[in-house]
Amino acid sequence: MTPGRFITLEGGEGVGKSTNVDFVCDWLSARGIDVLRTREPGGTPRAEAIRALLLDPTPQEPLDETAELLLMFAARAQHLAAKIRPALARGVWVVCDRFTDATFAYQGGGRGLDETRIATLEALVQDDLQPDLTLLLDMPVEAAQHRVERRGTTRDRFESERQNFFTAVRESYLSRAAQAPARFAVIDADRELDAVQASIADNLAERSALWS
Amino acid sequence: MTPGRFITLEGGEGVGKSTNVDFVCDWLSARGIDVLRTREPGGTPRAEAIRALLLDPTPQEPLDETAELLLMFAARAQHLAAKIRPALARGVWVVCDRFTDATFAYQGGGRGLDETRIATLEALVQDDLQPDLTLLLDMPVEAAQHRVERRGTTRDRFESERQNFFTAVRESYLSRAAQAPARFAVIDADRELDAVQASIADNLAERSALWS
Repeated sequence: MTPGRFITLEGGEGVGKSTNVDFVCDWLSARGIDVLRTREPGGTPRAEAIRALLLDPTPQEPLDETAELLLMFAARAQHLAAKIRPALARGVWVVCDRFTDATFAYQGGGRGLDETRIATLEALVQDDLQPDLTLLLDMPVEAAQHRVERRGTTRDRFESERQNFFTAVRESYLSRAAQAPARFAVIDADRELDAVQASIADNLAERSALWS
Repeated sequence: MTPGRFITLEGGEGVGKSTNVDFVCDWLSARGIDVLRTREPGGTPRAEAIRALLLDPTPQEPLDETAELLLMFAARAQHLAAKIRPALARGVWVVCDRFTDATFAYQGGGRGLDETRIATLEALVQDDLQPDLTLLLDMPVEAAQHRVERRGTTRDRFESERQNFFTAVRESYLSRAAQAPARFAVIDADRELDAVQASIADNLAERSALWS
């Protein structure tokens, strides 16, 4: 049996990740591929419970940065063990809304945590597992912020961070994409949805042809 | 200002840790020392929330071993940042019911997790911080098990592990004590409480004389 492929979608708030995770899943399903849609942090009941701790804004006791990083990777280890690795082993393709690149971008680029510490935890949790394809939805920070404001949802602890934080996140994502061009596809997300999804479809068709 | 000292109590189930943590705190307080009593995993509201995830026996989704290890160290990072390091900096002595030695003993010795992974996380979370004194309450596993059975409390996921597990835990603790004799005091806990506490008091008097 051929193991499944692991596809991740990355990008800052407001770039249209959720909509395009749907699109990727539908595109694959339409081609007869078994797909598992999931997300980080979270993805299983235990990992979701860890996610809840990460998003808790309790002001009385700020969450320590190292603790935050370890919780992220604890949720990831659980998600990998209980859901992602078993699915890939069964031949199912896994489409994940965010993965370790988000930790490098948000905790590393955004918060300034030492990236060697993140890389240490990545090696501890993932061993050699990396996504086969990472679709990075990219757009200028101001355009993404306008979309978030239009959405009008309650902002959580992460979404209420400031503009320069998101600029650092974007730069970190782009830098990682430049370092691993065989894995990343950078999608210009500052266009009409049809055009964005046409680019995503082109990338999926091109990559999956290489894998088969 | 002289920083406080960091004292940990270690040992398997049933060796009398809680009673002797009380004794250590009382002994120090009686000598005019400001003491903070705490415990692992836990010690702060956020760390206790992580502790609750560790003890949740949900059978539908077993907790991955790496996730367990990362949660342990996430709770520890939070405990250090929010409680232990600030207290030591104020000159308060911290008495902690279990610390990283317990992770080496339970997850390493007991469960067989690779100890180099535990050491990697220890370095990430603690930097150079180590307890000034670790009191290891030691007794044969069978004697300790009899005490746990007499206590008749509901057993959590850890307490329901088997005899050979506790033997491995004890051996791991003793091995760590042998490797760091300047930090550890091994207390024979298989005696009447008065005799055990006389040994603890002797060790506290001897070590604290060296520190002053």
